[in-house]
Amino acid sequence: MNGSHLPLIKLTDPSKEHTYIIDEGGSSPIMSEVREKARLAKQVTNRLAALTTEQKNNALLKMADALVAGQAAIIAANQEDLQLGRENGLTSSLLDRLALNETRIADMAEGLRQVADLPDPVGDTLETFTRPNGLQVKKLRVPIGLIGMIYEARPNVTVDAAGLALKTGNAVLLRGGSSALHSNLAIVRVLHDALADTDLPPQALQIIENPDRASVDELLKLNGLVDVVIPRGGQSLIQTVVKNASVPVIETGAGICHTYIDRDADVDMALDIAFNAKVQRPSVCNAMETLLIHQHFAEQHLGMIVNKFQEAGVELRGCEASRKLTDGILAATDEDYATEYNDYILNLKVVADLAEAIDHIGKYGTMHSECIVTNDAANAARFLQVVDAAAVYHNASTRFTDGFEFGFGAEIGISTQKLHARGPMGLPALTSTKYVIYGQGQIRA
Amino acid sequence: MNGSHLPLIKLTDPSKEHTYIIDEGGSSPIMSEVREKARLAKQVTNRLAALTTEQKNNALLKMADALVAGQAAIIAANQEDLQLGRENGLTSSLLDRLALNETRIADMAEGLRQVADLPDPVGDTLETFTRPNGLQVKKLRVPIGLIGMIYEARPNVTVDAAGLALKTGNAVLLRGGSSALHSNLAIVRVLHDALADTDLPPQALQIIENPDRASVDELLKLNGLVDVVIPRGGQSLIQTVVKNASVPVIETGAGICHTYIDRDADVDMALDIAFNAKVQRPSVCNAMETLLIHQHFAEQHLGMIVNKFQEAGVELRGCEASRKLTDGILAATDEDYATEYNDYILNLKVVADLAEAIDHIGKYGTMHSECIVTNDAANAARFLQVVDAAAVYHNASTRFTDGFEFGFGAEIGISTQKLHARGPMGLPALTSTKYVIYGQGQIRA
Repeated sequence: MNGSHLPLIKLTDPSKEHTYIIDEGGSSPIMSEVREKARLAKQVTNRLAALTTEQKNNALLKMADALVAGQAAIIAANQEDLQLGRENGLTSSLLDRLALNETRIADMAEGLRQVADLPDPVGDTLETFTRPNGLQVKKLRVPIGLIGMIYEARPNVTVDAAGLALKTGNAVLLRGGSSALHSNLAIVRVLHDALADTDLPPQALQIIENPDRASVDELLKLNGLVDVVIPRGGQSLIQTVVKNASVPVIETGAGICHTYIDRDADVDMALDIAFNAKVQRPSVCNAMETLLIHQHFAEQHLGMIVNKFQEAGVELRGCEASRKLTDGILAATDEDYATEYNDYILNLKVVADLAEAIDHIGKYGTMHSECIVTNDAANAARFLQVVDAAAVYHNASTRFTDGFEFGFGAEIGISTQKLHARGPMGLPALTSTKYVIYGQGQIRA
Repeated sequence: MNGSHLPLIKLTDPSKEHTYIIDEGGSSPIMSEVREKARLAKQVTNRLAALTTEQKNNALLKMADALVAGQAAIIAANQEDLQLGRENGLTSSLLDRLALNETRIADMAEGLRQVADLPDPVGDTLETFTRPNGLQVKKLRVPIGLIGMIYEARPNVTVDAAGLALKTGNAVLLRGGSSALHSNLAIVRVLHDALADTDLPPQALQIIENPDRASVDELLKLNGLVDVVIPRGGQSLIQTVVKNASVPVIETGAGICHTYIDRDADVDMALDIAFNAKVQRPSVCNAMETLLIHQHFAEQHLGMIVNKFQEAGVELRGCEASRKLTDGILAATDEDYATEYNDYILNLKVVADLAEAIDHIGKYGTMHSECIVTNDAANAARFLQVVDAAAVYHNASTRFTDGFEFGFGAEIGISTQKLHARGPMGLPALTSTKYVIYGQGQIRA
């Protein structure tokens, strides 16, 4: 290996709850891979914070070029993962997510170039004020420090997360799904080589090799080293992180999104928005799972709605009132209303009024994206104010909750929690702040 | 009890790990006190979010008046706590923190009036932009929802936390130290009575009566009900919360703060700032614990520094180099440098240069408040950029890290983490955001 690489980690006893390495220097104490890599990454956070935008962009462009130049090695490693995946019985959709080819690698490289093109939020002055005693206070945007990313078997997330974190002057500790391990390691090797020729220290980018669950548990407890963990993936991954982390977490993802068609809605608009919210891409978090319909609207138009969805192959599950109005609707259970299908299945519910719709959303929603279709301005205003979600829509599809659609140029994820960032997260969500105070000898009385 | 009170909770089996109540309605399922009160508070978060600033301020002023009018009952309850405290051998400083009298109650009431006077951040438009497809996007400040507060035996925090949370349209679930339980319950009874005559539902203010540790553990796991927990108190309380919570936490408090006197510092200014940072109020988190001194400055001035601190009764612990220069310094250990004394004890360390000072702060600091005293502009700039802390000072005392000193008019705490809020937290730190999107039928292509 060349000098820019980090020392190869030796898992001396992978069967232990915490695995250990012997530092190749031979003198330092035994330390787990996760802690050692977090420590290495943390060591350079001060240097990263001092990099200019130009230095960071140059590094990203070198990383992009290196991915393309190094694609043979990456594809070869990916073949190993695919082979193991087939042996382990991965589904074809999982194998598809895992697979890399020249086009996908070119896309990953292009993603890095786009991130390089985005404005750098680090160093922005957010506030400045002078106190009566003459102290001048500035609030500046600074990198967060060391970001832990935990994700599933999608090698593109490795590149994506590295690019977003490094652009914002953060170090990053990656822990991808074990079935993409060879691909991820090959990608990180290529990126490390690229960084060796830049001002951005390769140490800033770390990937955990130990596929054991214990390495995730350890990462989640590294208070003082890891400043935040961001999980990316399905609900089970995200909930594992939320429940077990003692380091701060940004919760992303789960979306049980509703569209409510009010009594006084434009019929064509309502059908277009509802159809788009469900069918345009059912597998994503901002797709609709439940359609709420005012009883008067339902009485007149439910048959047409049901036809439209059934023609698109959507299975419908509804409340008793909906099933009385129209054939072809299965009975929906409480559990159905609480399920994120991410599939061609839609819950229907006929409601008496706006208040019932709002209550239903309060009970079953995940505070992601919620929509009202109506021409009644008062009802729209009430819905937008009272519904507690990251994004609330009047007369538009919930599918727009997305960093690119919002014009952020990048998206780290969609926060469904209320601290730090809420909704689509662009680059500023990967920064913190710092107060810088300039005095002339002031002391407190 | 009158109608504005919440049903009295009956602890049917306080010896169990989780205690249970029977709902006085008799029909709903058995539920723990903590979960039931969280649920009650959560039920009104939508109503709170819709209150006007005037409605909230009116409620705060009524609460202030009620505290003064109800002081006899509060003081009587406080006497019970003090009696139990003496029987349980509480130290005199703990008893002093716990004690209430007319002056202290008047101060708490005045605090509520001051919070009523502050601008209301809720409803502020933070961003607004229109997308090429015509979608208009607004980013608004909204309440967080339900805030859990965990604190020690200081009854004033009960009033303070209630005022700050309600002013920002949040519901609040309080869990104070058990030795202040009678005082806190009396205060909350008075506040509930006051709220009964306002538009702010008393249900928004909840206090946990179960003094068992299990009630804290349960509160920390109420994901979906509690939107954030804020601990206020000593390090052990804060670390318990950080380590055990699965709900989001805002970590506050710990301050191992440094002052670094550079080679090229004004002598009088350096001494004044260092002295102020240690001695003006040693018990608080923004007080200095370690004084770093450039070796050339130390060679000339350490004797004078040591005299000044010793005359003020400060015990000095220092590195070998400092002890060679001057008598009267005890030997400092690694543990000393890692200790937040909050007392008349100061660590000294002579450093070779700025870089060594920065390294020491990186190793032992808690990212709270750090200061450089120097006339060297380049060194000041380097320190302010590289030192990773909530507040970094050039030529001013670290004691200024404070919501009131920063002009925020209130302080919920001082965040030492990097997400959501960093440094002194004013009212905006108790808010989240929400994207409101106005469309005319837009769907995603």
